[in-house]
Amino acid sequence: MSEGNHYQFNVVMTCSGCSGAIDKALTRLKPEVSKIDISLEKQTVDVISTLPYETILEKIQKTGKQVNSGKQL
Amino acid sequence: MSEGNHYQFNVVMTCSGCSGAIDKALTRLKPEVSKIDISLEKQTVDVISTLPYETILEKIQKTGKQVNSGKQL
Repeated sequence: MSEGNHYQFNVVMTCSGCSGAIDKALTRLKPEVSKIDISLEKQTVDVISTLPYETILEKIQKTGKQVNSGKQL
Repeated sequence: MSEGNHYQFNVVMTCSGCSGAIDKALTRLKPEVSKIDISLEKQTVDVISTLPYETILEKIQKTGKQVNSGKQL
């Protein structure tokens, strides 16, 4: 079972290269990030992590992608 | 005239969202980055900057995009 908080972000992604870039950036935070689920169709990035919300948000923002909203579920 | 060193990177970009993300990330380094020229067609990112090569490379890598090569011109 995955450990940590569940965060969800709405991110503008227009192709699999976009979503793949976010996946790659977040993968570097393993094992503090235990699950990454990205939907290009829904424009969502779901993350389960023991790291703070702000840390994950900042990591996604550093990819240069536009984050429209985010929340802890 | 633009100040600084001229660096060129070959980066995998598959859509304008990909190239736009890199542009956005590098734009945050202004004014230390004075020029950014990205070609989706040529898969190149040209940067003129007073910052070290490694700093620019790292910034591009943090976007999660694959950098295949880079050099100072």
